[in-house]
Amino acid sequence: MEPKELERYFEKGTLIPAVIQEAGTGEVLMLAYMNRESLERTLRTGYTWFYSRSRQELWNKGATSGHVQRVLSVMGDCDRDTLLIQVEQTGPACHTGSHSCFFRQLTQWEATAGKENEENE
Amino acid sequence: MEPKELERYFEKGTLIPAVIQEAGTGEVLMLAYMNRESLERTLRTGYTWFYSRSRQELWNKGATSGHVQRVLSVMGDCDRDTLLIQVEQTGPACHTGSHSCFFRQLTQWEATAGKENEENE
Repeated sequence: MEPKELERYFEKGTLIPAVIQEAGTGEVLMLAYMNRESLERTLRTGYTWFYSRSRQELWNKGATSGHVQRVLSVMGDCDRDTLLIQVEQTGPACHTGSHSCFFRQLTQWEATAGKENEENE
Repeated sequence: MEPKELERYFEKGTLIPAVIQEAGTGEVLMLAYMNRESLERTLRTGYTWFYSRSRQELWNKGATSGHVQRVLSVMGDCDRDTLLIQVEQTGPACHTGSHSCFFRQLTQWEATAGKENEENE
């Protein structure tokens, strides 16, 4: 990818969300944010780097835990403000020990699942 | 879900990203943002509602195009600032006509794929 093309992903802001999906299972593991430098490092090294909004620093996923993510594919979306990254995940992706960070089922919805769209305004 | 529990998803900000995944294929279709009201409408109606940052208004995905998303599951992540929504997608998810919004391959990376992590600092 040309540097100019990469630049276009950061026109709206300095951070963009990156959805991390396990290539083998299709499971969505986590979402984290990238700035331009973390995307460049990810592209260059083949392992995920993110930008921590709370710590305000770059972090290499798994550098401490060993639960690294080897990158198999990086895709941008239609309007170039989100990334989808297919990885091979070593160990759990979540700091809680869960394989995926998405483990909280929001249950109230289930009672109305499958109903016709009442508010298609 | 209790209203108090729902409230926790909007403690850090008024908008959170929602990853939309096709339930049948596992394909990640798009990412859009939800405020509390759009999440409530999604939970209540069983179809996706988002908040448009550019237009600053709620929108019901597919209300114009007919390409609606019937919700099968809503999951929150470990720190309650991202949603993963499994849907049954009618037609293409992307306004370009692509099934998924993620169709831009970032290719420079491919040349270094699979290399050992050189920057595991």
